[in-house]
Amino acid sequence: MDDVIAVNAPIRVAQLGCGTVGSHVARLLLSGTDLSAHIGHPLQVTGIAVRHLDKARPGIDPALLTTDSESLVDDADVVVEVIGGIEPARTLILRAMAHGASIVTANKALLAAHGPELYASAEANGVDLYFEAAVAGAIPIIRPLRESLVGDEILCVKGIVNGTTNFILDEMTNSGMSFADALGLAQELGFAEPDPTADVEGFDAAAKASLLASLGFRTQILGDEVSRDGITSVTTDDIEAANRLGYVIKLLACAKPLDADPTQISVWVRPTMVPLSHPLANVHGGNNAIFVESRNAGRLMFMGPGAGGAPTASAVLGDLVTVARNRVAGVHLPPTMDSGSRRAASHGDAMTSAYIALTVADSPGVLARIASVFAAHQVSISTVHQGPSDARSAVLDITTHCSRWGDVQDSVAELKTLTDVVHGDIRVYAVEGN
Amino acid sequence: MDDVIAVNAPIRVAQLGCGTVGSHVARLLLSGTDLSAHIGHPLQVTGIAVRHLDKARPGIDPALLTTDSESLVDDADVVVEVIGGIEPARTLILRAMAHGASIVTANKALLAAHGPELYASAEANGVDLYFEAAVAGAIPIIRPLRESLVGDEILCVKGIVNGTTNFILDEMTNSGMSFADALGLAQELGFAEPDPTADVEGFDAAAKASLLASLGFRTQILGDEVSRDGITSVTTDDIEAANRLGYVIKLLACAKPLDADPTQISVWVRPTMVPLSHPLANVHGGNNAIFVESRNAGRLMFMGPGAGGAPTASAVLGDLVTVARNRVAGVHLPPTMDSGSRRAASHGDAMTSAYIALTVADSPGVLARIASVFAAHQVSISTVHQGPSDARSAVLDITTHCSRWGDVQDSVAELKTLTDVVHGDIRVYAVEGN
Repeated sequence: MDDVIAVNAPIRVAQLGCGTVGSHVARLLLSGTDLSAHIGHPLQVTGIAVRHLDKARPGIDPALLTTDSESLVDDADVVVEVIGGIEPARTLILRAMAHGASIVTANKALLAAHGPELYASAEANGVDLYFEAAVAGAIPIIRPLRESLVGDEILCVKGIVNGTTNFILDEMTNSGMSFADALGLAQELGFAEPDPTADVEGFDAAAKASLLASLGFRTQILGDEVSRDGITSVTTDDIEAANRLGYVIKLLACAKPLDADPTQISVWVRPTMVPLSHPLANVHGGNNAIFVESRNAGRLMFMGPGAGGAPTASAVLGDLVTVARNRVAGVHLPPTMDSGSRRAASHGDAMTSAYIALTVADSPGVLARIASVFAAHQVSISTVHQGPSDARSAVLDITTHCSRWGDVQDSVAELKTLTDVVHGDIRVYAVEGN
Repeated sequence: MDDVIAVNAPIRVAQLGCGTVGSHVARLLLSGTDLSAHIGHPLQVTGIAVRHLDKARPGIDPALLTTDSESLVDDADVVVEVIGGIEPARTLILRAMAHGASIVTANKALLAAHGPELYASAEANGVDLYFEAAVAGAIPIIRPLRESLVGDEILCVKGIVNGTTNFILDEMTNSGMSFADALGLAQELGFAEPDPTADVEGFDAAAKASLLASLGFRTQILGDEVSRDGITSVTTDDIEAANRLGYVIKLLACAKPLDADPTQISVWVRPTMVPLSHPLANVHGGNNAIFVESRNAGRLMFMGPGAGGAPTASAVLGDLVTVARNRVAGVHLPPTMDSGSRRAASHGDAMTSAYIALTVADSPGVLARIASVFAAHQVSISTVHQGPSDARSAVLDITTHCSRWGDVQDSVAELKTLTDVVHGDIRVYAVEGN
C-alpha cells in the first residue's frame, strides 16, 4: 500500500454516486452515526461525485458535491462506489485502487462482469475490495462466506436473491394475478424498475449467484457463466399446478459442485418448484433468503430485506468501518477467490429433480411411449399424476428423480416431436428437495 | 502486542480441552482443512491440554496431548479454549493474554460471568478475543453484530438460542408429551445433559442473551443480570391453550432498550407464546434462530443448528483464521463493548404483551373485578376468551397490550388474593407480536 494514514490525519472517504442508495449512505455518513468511534480514528467525507450538481438532495451539504470524480478518487483513502452499472464505475474503481484507495461497493453487475480484473487490482495494489451490499441488501452473507465459514467446506449455496421477482411471484400465487399484472403492480409500488429486464429475466439474480458461487467455492465465476431463466414465462396455470402438488414457484439461485467432478461448479438461476414445507417457500414479498450448507456448520439460513436504500446503506457502512480500520492498521483482507482449478460447469450438467407437465392423447400405450423417451435420456421418473382430462386428452404431471438438466431438456425436445401423442405446450420446472 | 510473528515462523496454536467440541476442532485442525492457505502463513498446533492423557482419542496424535496447560499457553500465539466452564478456563485465558496470545473461545458461561475482565485484559494486552462459537453454534451472529452492523443502530435482538429446550418444547407440542417425558427423550438422544439444569432453567440461554445484548447495544451485561425463567413449569395444558389461540410456546431470549430510557437494556429469557405465523414458530428441533432488528437494515434472521461438535468447531475455525491473520498483520479487532453508560434494566421494566389464564367463579361481576385489578396496575387488556367451563367455574384466557412485566406480575399477585373469585393456579406467559 503506498498510502499510509498519518497518526492524526482523518481517513478520507470519497463517495461516487448519490442515487437511492447513495443518498442514504451520504445522510448516514454526514449525520448522527458516529463511525469514527468504531474505527478508533476520525473519518472525513471529502466529496460526493454526481452527474448533475443542481438536483435537490435534502440533508446533503451541496459544498460536498462535485462532478470531478477523478480528482475525488485520486485523493481518497477509501472510495464508496454506489453509482451502479459498469462504466464509469469500473474505470473509477481501478483508478482509485491504483492510487492506493480501498473500495466499498454495492455494484453486483460490475463485480459479476469484471470481478477478476477488480480482485487482481485490489491484490496488486494491496487494498481492500468489500461488497457486502452487492448481494441481498443488508443480510450479512459476503462476510460469513469470506470469513466465518473459511475453515469449513461449503457444499451448496442456494436462495432467493431478487426481491422484485419474489414480490411478483408472491402476488401471482396469492391473488392469481397474471405475470403482466403483477409486474405492473410492482412497478406502481416502486418494487420494479420501469425497464424490469434485469430483474424479471434473472440477470440481477445471476450476477448475485456468480458472486455467491465465487465466494463459496473460492473461484471466479462470471455472471454470464450462470445458467439463467427468468420468470416472464411463468403462468398462473403453472403456479396452480405447483400448488396442487404441494409446491410454490420461486426464482431460486443455486451454486454447488458437481458430484461427478467437484472442480466444476454448477451455477443456475431459474423458477423452481419449492415444497410448501421448505423455509424458502415462506420467504415473502421483497425479502431475500440464502441457505448455506456446509460440511461442519450444517444448514444455515440468512433472511431479510433484499434491497432498498436504507438496508443497502447499512451494509455499505459496515464495510466502510472494517475497511477504514484496516487502512489505519495498514492491512487488507487477503483474497478469498482465486482463478484456480475450479470453473463453471456446463449448463446441461446441473443436477436437479424436474417437473414436466404435458397434455397427451388419452389412449392406451401413451404413458409407455413417454416413459421410454425419458428412459432413453437416462431420466428416471419419480411420480406421474394425471390431471384434468377431457374425452380425447389428459394432462400428465411428471416429476423426475435427480437428473442432468441437459437430459431433461433433451427428453422434452424429443417429446415435442411426438406430435401424434403430445398436444400443445410442455411446461418444465426444476424441483427443489425438502 | 509483545509477540510479533517472524516472517517464516508458523503461528503456534495451543488448544485447551478435547471433549465433544475439542475433538472436532482437533481433527479439523490436524487433518485436511488447509487453514494456512486462508491465513497466508503456516500454522502449527503445538499441543492440546487435557485432564487425562490415557483416554482414547481417535485421529488425534497422542504426542500432542499434555496435562501441562500452563506451559502450553505460555508458548502460544493463539489459544483455542474449548474446556468450557469457569475454571481453569478463566485463569488460563488471562494467563495466555498476559503472555500476548490471542484467544478463540466457545465458552459462553465464562464470558457471561467474567466478560468485562476478559475484554479488558484483551484490550490491555493488545490481543484478540473471538467467540463466534459461544452463541448459536456455527450461525454467524457475533461477527454480524460486531462488524457487519456496526454502522447501523440495532433496535432489538431476539431469538431461540438453546436447542435442548427447543427440542423439548417441540416434542411437548407435537406429541403431547409431558415436560418430564420430553426431557427423558432428549437425554436418551443426547440432546440434553444428565444434569439438564443449565438448559431447562434457562441459564445457558441467559448467558447467550447477555452476550447478544452486550454486542448489540455495545455495553457489558452479565448473565446473572438477565431476567430468566426456564421451561420446567410449562405444562401440556399451557401448550394446548396456546395452540387454541394460534400460538406455540418457545423459550425466547430478547434484548432491547427501554422506550422510556434507551440507556437501560431490557434482557430476558422466558417461555413465550409466539404466533404460529411468526418465523420463530417454525424453528424446530435443535435449531437456533436469531432475529436482529435494526434502524436501516430492517429485520434480519439467522437460523441453523445451535450446537453440536461439528458446527461449533466450524465457528471456532472461522475465528481462528481471522485471529491468525490479525496476528500476522500485528493488529487486533478494537473492542465493540464498553462499560459505558448503558446498563441492564430492572426485570420488572421489561415491556411485553402477556397471556394470563385463570379459573374463576362463573358468576356475575367476576370479569369486572378481574379487569379492575389489571386496570389498577396500568395493565390494559387486549382480549378475553372464556375457555372450558363447568357449572360453577370458567377458564378465562386474557391477553394484554404491551405492558410492564412487573405490572403484569403485580396484577397476578393481587388476583391470587381474590380467593372467593379466582380458583387454583394462574398461568402467565409473555406473548410475542407478529
